[in-house]
Amino acid sequence: MSKGSILYQRAVQVLPGGVSRNLVLRDPHPVYVARAQGFTVEDIDGKKYIDFSNNVASLIHGHAYPPIVEAVSEQLKKGTAYMLGTEIEIEYAELLHNRVPQFEQIRFVNSGSEAVMAMIKAARAYTHRPIIAKAEGAYHGSFDTAEVSQDPTPENWGNYNNPRSAPHVPGTPDGVLQNVVVFPFNDVQTTINILNKYKDRIAAILIDPVPHRISMVPANREFIYALYDWTRAHNCLLCFDEVVTFRSAYGGAQEKYPVKPDLTSLGKIIGGGFPIGALTGRKEIMDILNPRSTNYRYALSGTFSANPISMTAGKIAMEHYTQEKVDYVTALTEKAKKQVLEASKIAGVPASVTGMGTFFRLFLTSPSPQHYRETYLYEQANKAAIKAALDYLYDHGIIAINSLTFMPSTVMTEKEIDILSEVILGMFKHVKPLIKEWR
Amino acid sequence: MSKGSILYQRAVQVLPGGVSRNLVLRDPHPVYVARAQGFTVEDIDGKKYIDFSNNVASLIHGHAYPPIVEAVSEQLKKGTAYMLGTEIEIEYAELLHNRVPQFEQIRFVNSGSEAVMAMIKAARAYTHRPIIAKAEGAYHGSFDTAEVSQDPTPENWGNYNNPRSAPHVPGTPDGVLQNVVVFPFNDVQTTINILNKYKDRIAAILIDPVPHRISMVPANREFIYALYDWTRAHNCLLCFDEVVTFRSAYGGAQEKYPVKPDLTSLGKIIGGGFPIGALTGRKEIMDILNPRSTNYRYALSGTFSANPISMTAGKIAMEHYTQEKVDYVTALTEKAKKQVLEASKIAGVPASVTGMGTFFRLFLTSPSPQHYRETYLYEQANKAAIKAALDYLYDHGIIAINSLTFMPSTVMTEKEIDILSEVILGMFKHVKPLIKEWR
Repeated sequence: MSKGSILYQRAVQVLPGGVSRNLVLRDPHPVYVARAQGFTVEDIDGKKYIDFSNNVASLIHGHAYPPIVEAVSEQLKKGTAYMLGTEIEIEYAELLHNRVPQFEQIRFVNSGSEAVMAMIKAARAYTHRPIIAKAEGAYHGSFDTAEVSQDPTPENWGNYNNPRSAPHVPGTPDGVLQNVVVFPFNDVQTTINILNKYKDRIAAILIDPVPHRISMVPANREFIYALYDWTRAHNCLLCFDEVVTFRSAYGGAQEKYPVKPDLTSLGKIIGGGFPIGALTGRKEIMDILNPRSTNYRYALSGTFSANPISMTAGKIAMEHYTQEKVDYVTALTEKAKKQVLEASKIAGVPASVTGMGTFFRLFLTSPSPQHYRETYLYEQANKAAIKAALDYLYDHGIIAINSLTFMPSTVMTEKEIDILSEVILGMFKHVKPLIKEWR
Repeated sequence: MSKGSILYQRAVQVLPGGVSRNLVLRDPHPVYVARAQGFTVEDIDGKKYIDFSNNVASLIHGHAYPPIVEAVSEQLKKGTAYMLGTEIEIEYAELLHNRVPQFEQIRFVNSGSEAVMAMIKAARAYTHRPIIAKAEGAYHGSFDTAEVSQDPTPENWGNYNNPRSAPHVPGTPDGVLQNVVVFPFNDVQTTINILNKYKDRIAAILIDPVPHRISMVPANREFIYALYDWTRAHNCLLCFDEVVTFRSAYGGAQEKYPVKPDLTSLGKIIGGGFPIGALTGRKEIMDILNPRSTNYRYALSGTFSANPISMTAGKIAMEHYTQEKVDYVTALTEKAKKQVLEASKIAGVPASVTGMGTFFRLFLTSPSPQHYRETYLYEQANKAAIKAALDYLYDHGIIAINSLTFMPSTVMTEKEIDILSEVILGMFKHVKPLIKEWR
């Protein structure tokens, strides 16, 4: 019996499902890490993997990045959390502001979920309005409002032109559902028609510009323009959720759009491997968080927010994620996408890739789904194929995010991309008989 | 100009109010930490403090506790976050279960706020009901539902026998407020009358057994019995928020009550100085989080949840917080409370202390406020006195939580308690002219 099997038998006693996070669950049991360094993870049974998940997109320099290990080791000796200010939180906020000018002021929190929750609460407080509009199928963390219609099904998603606000968790109060309006991603006219119905009550439009669970197709410019214009016309806020997508370019995905959001939520890579989230944006809006301002109306604290470990690690992670490194990871990603599509042709399977800059999602279909309902139908039809694909990757030493999404890091080289491409070629051949048409 | 003043001028540019957490704010600027070790904090201008805040009750062994520094330094080299399982999260869950038998299963998250949010969502999902009942004035983190009536005022708190659900942040949807029912702490009959009105719609009663902002008076047994019985009679859950109070005894504050909650939220000290939260309780309920169970209905993940740094530090913190150490800190706290009351007599000022076990809150009035509305009136009348008291403490090298609450740690000795008592004697004399009658 493997060490992993033995551990899992203990785990199911004290952890629901034997896991702390559902995405870790695998058959017959999760992979248990012994150690990780750079792009390599070694499990407790001695098997090695190349890690393309990078903890769900949160490690831009791979595991145990030496400059971060060194700086955090020093900080540990001076304390990890105080009910006092630190120089490092100021330096880090300055760095992020200098990197992205529209990040005028910043509040750090402990997770992407907390960042989105703070962004929604700030938008409601600033506008004195209750409703948030979001794209159907978009994942924005675990705040109940942000979770509405995260994963609706044909049974509860309603008409495409007027999607229902579907609960993610049973027991979600109707009063929460009623304050979330859902629109179809990248469909300008349908979205505007829906927004117009609630125009005096919408506090903010919440949008992930490259939404992983919708299809990882980037929001097109026309769509972002339309959302921006609509928020200007109706005195509400445009909020970008860049928790995942900030890694896509030096200035985040918003760099790719000529219009800028009022507020942005951040997380993942900005923690350098430690828990973090951040709310940032226009000073005029952020001022509602300022206890010394006459505009003060939103008290936000948090025991571990801006702790010096997350600040130290995050600052180094971002300092080292230079434009040059962004370009480097982008080139690796382009190479991977090209080779994956070539492999699909050799294997004779339909495949497509979506994403932006430094990450991509692989679909066992071509063209890719374009919005949530298509992605849902594809996933339902191809549950067995996707599971077999993921199992094949793990068996052959590749860790991917469960949706077949890949997050290269700055410490990878062309060699790891070539290994990935070769494994994916074998995977395509392996799952070919399982792939189902879904359109 | 001090280094702190210069830093604050930079801070206000990039952080709203110049702070990441409001509770850090002081006049003329926050204290900025250079380093901390044990109970000592040194600021960037070289001033030393004895830290009785311990990062808002989150450090039970003080700062940079050597066994934690050592173990975390080792773990750093093996990685800080994986999209995979770890042995340490299982070991730590086992430890907490063995420590408190009713912690049958555990889910780790990243903060106390996330823990309470998960607890509320789990209760709603388990019961298929929308309403949460909570005590007026109780702080339960930043989830909007949990924040309702956290800090109402005479303008919006309504009748004592039927308190209004007051928004904490403007723009909170009515749909959120309508799903929170508020009752007066420690008042059995009034509370039961209120609960009875919503009996078929209440998912859970949420209670902090020693609520800091209400008065830090422990819930009396009769009150907890009544809540427990009511939840049994009406098929809903009793949820304890022990994010702060878990430090009060070996098995948390719930050790002091013969009836046990169904679910408990944890945070603060269980992270050993790193971001953490946890939802724990009865296996039958936690099973709704199990993706492999037929009862599965609540998908909960989180990028940094159960990360090996928080697990490693937290496990050591709890291993070293033995019954013997609990008794030690309790004795220090008792000594402090006794000496503080003696000092108040010497100074001729009214004073009282509340709390449980290893922490206490000091009121510049006697007897102490008993519930939220009394605490509010006391604080409003004594704003100047409380601020002057806190300033005096800081000036004389004592860090306390802003409400004049003190959180001794295992690394303190009777000497630090004697210093505290002496400074408090001086503080009493200093603020005596400012203390106002409020009843």
